[in-house]
Amino acid sequence: MVKNRTNLLIRFSDVDVLGIVWHGKYSYYFEDGREAFGNEFGLSYQDVYAQGYVTPIVHLEIDYKRSLKYGDQVYIETTYVDCEAAKIILDYKIVNENNDVLITGRTVQVFLDRDSRQLVLTVPPFFLNWKESHFLV
Amino acid sequence: MVKNRTNLLIRFSDVDVLGIVWHGKYSYYFEDGREAFGNEFGLSYQDVYAQGYVTPIVHLEIDYKRSLKYGDQVYIETTYVDCEAAKIILDYKIVNENNDVLITGRTVQVFLDRDSRQLVLTVPPFFLNWKESHFLV
Amino acid sequence: MVKNRTNLLIRFSDVDVLGIVWHGKYSYYFEDGREAFGNEFGLSYQDVYAQGYVTPIVHLEIDYKRSLKYGDQVYIETTYVDCEAAKIILDYKIVNENNDVLITGRTVQVFLDRDSRQLVLTVPPFFLNWKESHFLV
Amino acid sequence: MVKNRTNLLIRFSDVDVLGIVWHGKYSYYFEDGREAFGNEFGLSYQDVYAQGYVTPIVHLEIDYKRSLKYGDQVYIETTYVDCEAAKIILDYKIVNENNDVLITGRTVQVFLDRDSRQLVLTVPPFFLNWKESHFLV
Repeated sequence: MVKNRTNLLIRFSDVDVLGIVWHGKYSYYFEDGREAFGNEFGLSYQDVYAQGYVTPIVHLEIDYKRSLKYGDQVYIETTYVDCEAAKIILDYKIVNENNDVLITGRTVQVFLDRDSRQLVLTVPPFFLNWKESHFLV
Repeated sequence: MVKNRTNLLIRFSDVDVLGIVWHGKYSYYFEDGREAFGNEFGLSYQDVYAQGYVTPIVHLEIDYKRSLKYGDQVYIETTYVDCEAAKIILDYKIVNENNDVLITGRTVQVFLDRDSRQLVLTVPPFFLNWKESHFLV
Repeated sequence: MVKNRTNLLIRFSDVDVLGIVWHGKYSYYFEDGREAFGNEFGLSYQDVYAQGYVTPIVHLEIDYKRSLKYGDQVYIETTYVDCEAAKIILDYKIVNENNDVLITGRTVQVFLDRDSRQLVLTVPPFFLNWKESHFLV
Repeated sequence: MVKNRTNLLIRFSDVDVLGIVWHGKYSYYFEDGREAFGNEFGLSYQDVYAQGYVTPIVHLEIDYKRSLKYGDQVYIETTYVDCEAAKIILDYKIVNENNDVLITGRTVQVFLDRDSRQLVLTVPPFFLNWKESHFLV
């Protein structure tokens, strides 16, 4: 499984008047997970850009099982989900120190040509190589 | 159909280095839609709080069909989706002036007792009344 | 006085666990004021960009005299402060319906050449014209 | 000198269309510095709250000497500035790996009684002790 685990800082400013993290903040946490994943596995924004692509998010979903509070010590686990299409699918889990799952989610990214911003419908060669090097094809 | 339509301000700070709105910002736009809906139909945070409840979001999903840019003039349409469970389901559509659908999404909220923060499993009486008054039951 | 007044939406997500707007959110409100000012007086990001410049902020200050709460109805007043240097100085006041001043602040922007991103040390001709047309020179 | 130094994550979402960190994001970075400072020196939100106080920010200022970009490796240095009044003054510096100063700033916080939210005009005893223990009085 191609998976990164990184710890997560719950800022004071992330918490709403109910004392829990405001639901929209989790897209920032997922970004932190995605960046840590990209840095570990050579799939960062800069890596992909250098290959001639940008990969905007076209789908986001989040399920909130338990709420996070200011000061919580948690981890975000970001896992690659393989598919045949020219997409990057990542699953996210936020877990506490007991490994209880608090939040789950998913993002789907597509490939655009970096310059023309046109959608790329076939899997880019560099990404096929990336899959191979991680035993995914 | 119980539906609100409100116009949307795309701030400079909403836009990322690709010149499009960063995907995580849409949860703020949905919040704007939800607040406008709540204010029009008597289901605002304050209305619900006065009845003894808070309604945190337990599910969010967003599909990005086209990107928004700084300066775009768009509208967010927020529509109530009825269900039998003790939940508030809202669908969101962001449309441009030609009524092209750019973004769609959904939030699901549950009812917690305002003070104990315990989950409420049966539809609160005030919300049954709200449904009746909008011809939903 | 070259001054814009616009109303301000206090979002649920702007408020922290103390029930007041988190201090960092005011830079977004000032942005709303600055955009309304720019739209009214022909000095928007797009106007300036079309003239060949971008104007990043090099100084920000905010004084918090009273706190804002979720649901407050307030206004932001953005006033141009003239100076001889190649800078745009704007003062901000957030006032309530009784005109009580709740928040004050200032931003200072400099001119960069749009393409080279080099600092421009003399007042750009288009901005001199702008000043003249507003009886500032 | 009572000073904390912590490293800083520049997120993709922090960067605007010009490719630099949007000026309003720095209040989040200062918060990161303030929290790291509070955790190191026993002056965190929770420490202060346990003593019966909350300490909202009443003044913020930021000077932007150079811009930060996505991917930059930088540090935030947070330094306590002593004063006789019942205030917490912190100075912030964001520096790169060559110790070049990119950004400077300051926050001023006052003490409110945690429950009544009334302003406290004399230095709280716990804070006098804190100063003594750091050789500041």
